[in-house]
Amino acid sequence: MDDACYKLCEKLVPKNYIQQGQNAKSIHQSKIKHLLEQRRIPEEGWDDQTIELFLGELAIMDSNNFPDNCGVGEREARIYSSLVSKRHFRLGHGIGRSGEITAVQPKAAGSSLIMTLTNSLALHAIKLSGIQASSCFVVPMATGMSIALSLLSLRQKRPNAKYVLWPRIDQKSCIKSIVTSGFELVVIENVREGEELRTNLEEIQKKVQELGAGNILCILTTTSCFAPRVPDKLEEIGEICKSQDIPHVVNNAYGLQCSKCTHLIQQASRSRLDVFVQSTDKNFMVPVGGSIIAGFDDNLIRHISKCYPGRASSSPSTDLLITLLSMGVKGYKDLLKERKSNYKALQEKLSECAKKHGEHLLSTPHNGISMGMSLQTFQCNTEEAVTDLGSKLFTRLVSGTRVIPTDGKKSEICGRTFTSFGAHCDDYGSPYLTAAAAIGMTSQDIDLFITRLDKVLTKSAITKDSNQVDS
Amino acid sequence: MDDACYKLCEKLVPKNYIQQGQNAKSIHQSKIKHLLEQRRIPEEGWDDQTIELFLGELAIMDSNNFPDNCGVGEREARIYSSLVSKRHFRLGHGIGRSGEITAVQPKAAGSSLIMTLTNSLALHAIKLSGIQASSCFVVPMATGMSIALSLLSLRQKRPNAKYVLWPRIDQKSCIKSIVTSGFELVVIENVREGEELRTNLEEIQKKVQELGAGNILCILTTTSCFAPRVPDKLEEIGEICKSQDIPHVVNNAYGLQCSKCTHLIQQASRSRLDVFVQSTDKNFMVPVGGSIIAGFDDNLIRHISKCYPGRASSSPSTDLLITLLSMGVKGYKDLLKERKSNYKALQEKLSECAKKHGEHLLSTPHNGISMGMSLQTFQCNTEEAVTDLGSKLFTRLVSGTRVIPTDGKKSEICGRTFTSFGAHCDDYGSPYLTAAAAIGMTSQDIDLFITRLDKVLTKSAITKDSNQVDS
Amino acid sequence: MDDACYKLCEKLVPKNYIQQGQNAKSIHQSKIKHLLEQRRIPEEGWDDQTIELFLGELAIMDSNNFPDNCGVGEREARIYSSLVSKRHFRLGHGIGRSGEITAVQPKAAGSSLIMTLTNSLALHAIKLSGIQASSCFVVPMATGMSIALSLLSLRQKRPNAKYVLWPRIDQKSCIKSIVTSGFELVVIENVREGEELRTNLEEIQKKVQELGAGNILCILTTTSCFAPRVPDKLEEIGEICKSQDIPHVVNNAYGLQCSKCTHLIQQASRSRLDVFVQSTDKNFMVPVGGSIIAGFDDNLIRHISKCYPGRASSSPSTDLLITLLSMGVKGYKDLLKERKSNYKALQEKLSECAKKHGEHLLSTPHNGISMGMSLQTFQCNTEEAVTDLGSKLFTRLVSGTRVIPTDGKKSEICGRTFTSFGAHCDDYGSPYLTAAAAIGMTSQDIDLFITRLDKVLTKSAITKDSNQVDS
Amino acid sequence: MDDACYKLCEKLVPKNYIQQGQNAKSIHQSKIKHLLEQRRIPEEGWDDQTIELFLGELAIMDSNNFPDNCGVGEREARIYSSLVSKRHFRLGHGIGRSGEITAVQPKAAGSSLIMTLTNSLALHAIKLSGIQASSCFVVPMATGMSIALSLLSLRQKRPNAKYVLWPRIDQKSCIKSIVTSGFELVVIENVREGEELRTNLEEIQKKVQELGAGNILCILTTTSCFAPRVPDKLEEIGEICKSQDIPHVVNNAYGLQCSKCTHLIQQASRSRLDVFVQSTDKNFMVPVGGSIIAGFDDNLIRHISKCYPGRASSSPSTDLLITLLSMGVKGYKDLLKERKSNYKALQEKLSECAKKHGEHLLSTPHNGISMGMSLQTFQCNTEEAVTDLGSKLFTRLVSGTRVIPTDGKKSEICGRTFTSFGAHCDDYGSPYLTAAAAIGMTSQDIDLFITRLDKVLTKSAITKDSNQVDS
Repeated sequence: MDDACYKLCEKLVPKNYIQQGQNAKSIHQSKIKHLLEQRRIPEEGWDDQTIELFLGELAIMDSNNFPDNCGVGEREARIYSSLVSKRHFRLGHGIGRSGEITAVQPKAAGSSLIMTLTNSLALHAIKLSGIQASSCFVVPMATGMSIALSLLSLRQKRPNAKYVLWPRIDQKSCIKSIVTSGFELVVIENVREGEELRTNLEEIQKKVQELGAGNILCILTTTSCFAPRVPDKLEEIGEICKSQDIPHVVNNAYGLQCSKCTHLIQQASRSRLDVFVQSTDKNFMVPVGGSIIAGFDDNLIRHISKCYPGRASSSPSTDLLITLLSMGVKGYKDLLKERKSNYKALQEKLSECAKKHGEHLLSTPHNGISMGMSLQTFQCNTEEAVTDLGSKLFTRLVSGTRVIPTDGKKSEICGRTFTSFGAHCDDYGSPYLTAAAAIGMTSQDIDLFITRLDKVLTKSAITKDSNQVDS
Repeated sequence: MDDACYKLCEKLVPKNYIQQGQNAKSIHQSKIKHLLEQRRIPEEGWDDQTIELFLGELAIMDSNNFPDNCGVGEREARIYSSLVSKRHFRLGHGIGRSGEITAVQPKAAGSSLIMTLTNSLALHAIKLSGIQASSCFVVPMATGMSIALSLLSLRQKRPNAKYVLWPRIDQKSCIKSIVTSGFELVVIENVREGEELRTNLEEIQKKVQELGAGNILCILTTTSCFAPRVPDKLEEIGEICKSQDIPHVVNNAYGLQCSKCTHLIQQASRSRLDVFVQSTDKNFMVPVGGSIIAGFDDNLIRHISKCYPGRASSSPSTDLLITLLSMGVKGYKDLLKERKSNYKALQEKLSECAKKHGEHLLSTPHNGISMGMSLQTFQCNTEEAVTDLGSKLFTRLVSGTRVIPTDGKKSEICGRTFTSFGAHCDDYGSPYLTAAAAIGMTSQDIDLFITRLDKVLTKSAITKDSNQVDS
Repeated sequence: MDDACYKLCEKLVPKNYIQQGQNAKSIHQSKIKHLLEQRRIPEEGWDDQTIELFLGELAIMDSNNFPDNCGVGEREARIYSSLVSKRHFRLGHGIGRSGEITAVQPKAAGSSLIMTLTNSLALHAIKLSGIQASSCFVVPMATGMSIALSLLSLRQKRPNAKYVLWPRIDQKSCIKSIVTSGFELVVIENVREGEELRTNLEEIQKKVQELGAGNILCILTTTSCFAPRVPDKLEEIGEICKSQDIPHVVNNAYGLQCSKCTHLIQQASRSRLDVFVQSTDKNFMVPVGGSIIAGFDDNLIRHISKCYPGRASSSPSTDLLITLLSMGVKGYKDLLKERKSNYKALQEKLSECAKKHGEHLLSTPHNGISMGMSLQTFQCNTEEAVTDLGSKLFTRLVSGTRVIPTDGKKSEICGRTFTSFGAHCDDYGSPYLTAAAAIGMTSQDIDLFITRLDKVLTKSAITKDSNQVDS
Repeated sequence: MDDACYKLCEKLVPKNYIQQGQNAKSIHQSKIKHLLEQRRIPEEGWDDQTIELFLGELAIMDSNNFPDNCGVGEREARIYSSLVSKRHFRLGHGIGRSGEITAVQPKAAGSSLIMTLTNSLALHAIKLSGIQASSCFVVPMATGMSIALSLLSLRQKRPNAKYVLWPRIDQKSCIKSIVTSGFELVVIENVREGEELRTNLEEIQKKVQELGAGNILCILTTTSCFAPRVPDKLEEIGEICKSQDIPHVVNNAYGLQCSKCTHLIQQASRSRLDVFVQSTDKNFMVPVGGSIIAGFDDNLIRHISKCYPGRASSSPSTDLLITLLSMGVKGYKDLLKERKSNYKALQEKLSECAKKHGEHLLSTPHNGISMGMSLQTFQCNTEEAVTDLGSKLFTRLVSGTRVIPTDGKKSEICGRTFTSFGAHCDDYGSPYLTAAAAIGMTSQDIDLFITRLDKVLTKSAITKDSNQVDS
């Protein structure tokens, strides 16, 4: 309602009541104005009323909602189901144009605003997380496909390069992103330092020499990962990349939530780090489906965005926009803080539980999210035992934990053979299980986990003992 | 509620009333059961109540909604904002696994069911449209990126091929999908037959000879397109592909709605047609963001799905599932029929309007969706005039029409120079404007369009005349 | 968003796209402005987007939604459940104040606007229906309680009156409204004219003489009713009321939808008709729970509204507001027209079905909504047979039909004994079943009803015959 | 989905994943079963998912949602607007029948279940609050109208009684409920004890003698009220009622949240207390519109429910059901506890603020919700000053506080003249302002209030001083 409407309201309801209502409206309005002006996450999170008001205003601006529109094109964002329409706040045009995923659409000013604002807010979130990136965009694809897009974009700059150097991280989507993009995977096996699995810098340097820097598309490193693997040595790799003029792409899947990871990226940016990709769901508690492609060179990021062919779903952007507005800077920081303290709590409690069962917490100080507990005394050296312990936890509604045997099993992934896939190395030496303290975890999650793990381990111990008696 | 619950209800409300309620429930239930059994679009569309009931049941099956779950993984589908959660029916896990986009997730039985059912229903929809495809999957990317994925997948089968033969279709995302995938674009210029722009088969054969079939990744043809371009000669190209063993990929963007396009695909499948890709938004009236990758060889389609690295948004699948359930076979067929009759109506009325202004409808009998009207007597031979006529229609809330000048302007797209980009050929000879009768169009759209076009043309004529007087 | 916001948007998205969006916004805005200005049902119905926008704006104006409010009262419209909050569009303060149900609330400008606008729109709807009433208000109580409130209000003007003259209409809530209000029910038995049951004017006049006009609170007449009863002779009763100075209250439960009823009210208003009460659910297709108390004397209607003690739910007003905005004048008129033609169709088809089974449609030309079909040849003279036929239809999902036996059964209602309650008279002479063509009925309803009725009658006939053989 | 459906799911998704989903479903199901069995508020609150599932199941049971229903009645719960339909979870039939508001409807098993369950849960809530009532029902009217209904019901049992004895409580709706019901208001002026205003028992006894017990319909007492009035002496009045055989009705508007009030009711029930009425919005944080009529004699409560003429809105019942399910016993108890501690905090902080400004907190130990602060040194003895202080707080978004002058102004309420209406007595002696700690208040509310009050008082003091200087 504009001033004229409020004036008319005063004929129906006393002026001073209407004015209070109008004042309240102006508070919402000024939040929106501030957002459009600053294009940053608001300090205090918005309530749903303001968010819905804002999305409502944006939807009005898309041509499919124009009261008087007539569409004679092949794509008019007509939505058949009202259920579908409502869940998308009546937005149908998606984001991007054939030219570029970050381009605005003439038919969809509202959706275009969502896209640009979300990209701005995402950049702010990255900065809040500790990385002074200069540019980013949200893409409605998960990290794997986004890394693939980044690699494909780099090819246009290095048409003759065909190798991707890749410190081993046992995650299929990562391997796929390289293979699907048409590059040759050069696996750099990790080295064990203490109980940690770390980047083999010597091997990287050797490979660069061997293959020739010009033939290498990029080095693809990883930050967030399952213990006992720890984030790659980004700074040192950055140095190599800088000196050899090799692009450096980082898989920062769920690393934005952890200062250990973001610090590495920030440091590496001083030498060389071209692109880092992170998941929206894992870092910002939205449904699976989006990721942020970010970097320190606007032109490069723009180039990647221009490589994306055509339009795309606005759903992940909308989710992220709502969520960041809802969190506010304060809410986001609180979540990061809470995660950190949950990490410590999980460490302590898991360590205690481990000791009780004759095991110990693996010492992986460089990994700030995931941790491992040894399973040496348990019969986890066979596939069945693993399946058994894992499935017992699964049955008890513990999700997300992984039990890693030391069976040395061979797996074929994208035509490549890996030994002990899942362990990030051919032979770690002893079995273990992992757990992670990710953003949004609650202390109740921790307590339930420890209780259930304790029960399962106790039962397994009994079985183990009786089995030993049997044999 | 199960039988025990209904029994308890009978203590509160007379038995016969409860039984009627239970009967009503069983009708919903049997629809769901039938769907799970048949995995086909129901004959009669479901009402929203059944759809919401079904989605509610599926959401319950995902681990993030388990009342008692404890999550210690890095990805637990925790959703921060209740606005976001509700709009996704509390589903957060997306679809696919690192292994494959059509793989089921242990943590998300409900989301996995959505994915598999949507794929089955999409296949049914394709069959209803007239193509006896054997396999397909919905991917949360628009057609451009999906074509890219298809090309990348083919590379693994033809590692040495580097060319994509491409009968010219002036759509940036299509060009990008080739270039981004790392292939070399081989443009096959169209030939004018009557007023139609058609595939130059001789040129294709010449290029195949010239480049060598083994070096060609595929021929990428197009069905749905703006008049006066018409669908490519798929059957003849299929023959070439078959004889030369070259994959044949079809961009069927919005062709599923038009029997002229689907017939071509069906016919070409007898010789060779590997993959055809279509948009979900343009064919099924859902928001932008998804496409269906389909074909006649299960293994190939499976292979493409396996190339997709990692998880993805379930949003486009959910939208399509809701929409197909809501339409039913009957509703979908009605829409197809209505579109056809709208096409005829638009043709007649546009032709009439054209005549009134001394112009004519371009004769493009092979294009069943888009049509063109000549603009010879109008001053549309300059870029400004075009902008002017187009922007006048835009201002009058006519969306989707395009005005094509004959300015012979050069444009650079992905490093390639095109003449008269948008016209599908270097020089069509005369300017025109296009309009399309797409699915979901209403007769009101047609009438509004003709009225507004008539006004704009009348005004332009006056301006033109007065300009001529001036000069 | 205000002008400043749109200006800021132009930094993110080209100006002309933003302006189109802003224009679209202004269309919604001007609809709202027009509503506030005219306080009439809009000619064309609003779409949900405009309605939600409007309700969103109103909700913002209530103090419980003020971003900065602090509440230290006993009633602050805090809403515990977000499910509840959302379903009420965040409105919690209800309508009215302790002083008056039509009073505005300082804490709730938005809710107050809903209340006043709904009352204005309801008056417009009454006028569209054919009654030139001068005043009305929506009250969140169904007709029975609203009639009670009207009677109680009249008592304050006629403190010594204790009788309510009541042409018999066999509806418990109507009797209750009299008895609960503390008045003595004076039943005026109907007389049979042809096959119709009509008002016994002589009896009314006799009773007025007998009891003394000054002792009579009012005559409570009925318009809409089940055939073969027909609307009371309002005009003649109005004359009596006028000449004897007795208030005239009309139970117009679902009569607004039928010009036969509204014409009677309009005509009677020329002599005397004080208040007429109608249901919102039966006339406007909203959920049960509201009614409109209307009349031709502003002071009297105001007086009744002032008798309502305290606040009340805004839910029925909100439902009616949404519905009238959504219908528009056009939609409402179409519904009335459609109902009329449905009435004729039902008459024809039921008559045909009746003939087939040796029965006939009761001739009740004065009843424009309900109709009766004789059941003479069926064994419906016993309670069991009635239950049987009725329950057979109920089991076949026919709702709303009533089967009336001629068993002369005695029932006690509020301490009064009635013979053949449900038949509107002690002995109609023959059994029958009724059906009605009410607003919102579809032709599909009619066809299903006739088909099912035919089946049930056919089966019953067989049973009847075989029973006769048995005896 | 039933077992057959889950079995079918196992063909699409591995069995063990489906089984986990089915287990999750059974947890929701068992909650629903438990509710139907126990008909008590669940110990732990339900999440929205279970609530929506349950409401969805109930909606299916109403005939307007039967997939195959055909309606030929005058009331078929057809809902025009999908916005309206959705907000009522597709429920349209309301609650009750013409016979009785607590009767079940054949057409609406689902709505009937909501009604009966809500009544059961409301009774449980009353018990949790400390009153061992035996029966109650929720009625979709606010307290004023519900008290009126109770009084009207009593009339049928005491047809000759015409007086209602009423210890003065300055609330218009309460007076209206008596006057509208047609009874004569007998005001019992309060007496000041210390700083409290308390029931004048002697005056009550005198009036009973004077008017004759048989002529008195009931004594209508009040629990929750604004300080310095305190709850009536229910126990002593109960004794009088018992000895004189006079019904005792209690206006327990927002007293359920305060053990001081509920204790009084519980104690009085030992002597005589027939009915007590409370608001749903003020006690349970739902929107305005419902109240609970409760008592210790099933027959009496049933009798009142039978006096309600006709159907009624199910909206308040639905809101209350959702809210109680959502709170759980635990949540409700926590709210009660929190309110108590807020009361203490408000007392302390207001007392402190009062002292700072030379005022004091009124000593009203019998009032557990509302409190008063003296305004002796402020120029509040004129109407303007009051308006001024009150409106200053209103402008600063403090809602719910009341400033009471000592102007001895006369007001006419329902034809009766009251002196100093709002003060609960003719002359309290000094002005004051009130504030309340009601359920759902937050500590932030308290802090904001004190800050703003302090500011207003400081400013007023300055004005006052300068005014004094002026004079």
